[in-house]
Amino acid sequence: MRPKIQVALDLLRIQDALNIASKAAEYVDYLEAGTPLIKAEGLRAVTLLKKEFGDKVVVADMKTMDTGFLEASIAYEAGADYATVMAAADIGTVSGAVEARDKYGKGIMIDLLGVEDLEYARKLDELKPDYLLIHSGIDMQHRGIMPFEPVKKLSNMGLSAKIGVAGGLNKENIGGLQGLKVDLIIVGGFITKADDPGKAAKEVLEAVEEVF
Amino acid sequence: MRPKIQVALDLLRIQDALNIASKAAEYVDYLEAGTPLIKAEGLRAVTLLKKEFGDKVVVADMKTMDTGFLEASIAYEAGADYATVMAAADIGTVSGAVEARDKYGKGIMIDLLGVEDLEYARKLDELKPDYLLIHSGIDMQHRGIMPFEPVKKLSNMGLSAKIGVAGGLNKENIGGLQGLKVDLIIVGGFITKADDPGKAAKEVLEAVEEVF
Repeated sequence: MRPKIQVALDLLRIQDALNIASKAAEYVDYLEAGTPLIKAEGLRAVTLLKKEFGDKVVVADMKTMDTGFLEASIAYEAGADYATVMAAADIGTVSGAVEARDKYGKGIMIDLLGVEDLEYARKLDELKPDYLLIHSGIDMQHRGIMPFEPVKKLSNMGLSAKIGVAGGLNKENIGGLQGLKVDLIIVGGFITKADDPGKAAKEVLEAVEEVF
Repeated sequence: MRPKIQVALDLLRIQDALNIASKAAEYVDYLEAGTPLIKAEGLRAVTLLKKEFGDKVVVADMKTMDTGFLEASIAYEAGADYATVMAAADIGTVSGAVEARDKYGKGIMIDLLGVEDLEYARKLDELKPDYLLIHSGIDMQHRGIMPFEPVKKLSNMGLSAKIGVAGGLNKENIGGLQGLKVDLIIVGGFITKADDPGKAAKEVLEAVEEVF
């Protein structure tokens, strides 16, 4: 089974996010309300995405660094199917977000951005998250840091959690994930900044189907 | 000169934040829009705080983990005098937030939550942030972790940045900061959860004036 595809709607206005989602939804599985979108517009961005695209999985990229239970809870209450929490936060924050996941019967993704020693993923895996994410942030991509090496390492660690990967992915370089245990491919700018986001999303889907 | 006092308005609704701010403002210097408030309501929470309390310094606790320039910029455009960025983020994210600070002529606070080796603060200090924050998050406090030891260490490192401290502070334990180089004391629940937030804020001010 091919990995799921998630489009990261890293925009600042709900209407722009909804517009791109309407073009890309046909070719992707998960719609992500990006962190700057949530901060700019509030969690109603998540509510509106879920309302408009109820058949899609909606991810609230909360990037939670504290009050894990609270932040995951308000994301789920807003309509999110998944929330994200940072591995770089205190372990109590991560476990709090997992508790909220269990309470609401939703999903949690732990984002490893900022964690230098991937061995820490073993400890996080014990918390039974749905996903562990390898994530080269946008500022990291500007410094030439890509997610291929760390995701290769993580995919070989024999963890229970599903594995997601994000950071500068596009139709060309998805091939670099071939043979890896990857369950979720997150694509942002290649789709959202494309002249034709629908066409770009379709190309991502085709590339994923070819590689996996 | 005594340290500045910041009240962290960690609430989920703008109206609740404005209500508490109206009671506490007389006794504090900085009003902070908490991270869950920003995520729940969007940056209009910052805009409304600045509109209602224009003579106070308003801090947007963005806790930025990526797109440092963008997230700090939208906080300043919403009316924030200071934004926060996480030291645990990529260094490019932190420097991006500092660039936005320079562009907008505002202030930036780097939050050290999640950083285990405080020596890293020397590298961050080279970026010339306004504040470095020692921060025991709410989930850390639940595990008994308080900010006194790390703030003592940071205050002895001879850094250029001003130093702020947050995490479980109240009128009783502020005495534990005596003799340290602390420029900003951030108080949350002791004020926001008090039956009388105005009285609690006054007690914090009195404690700070007694200790420093």
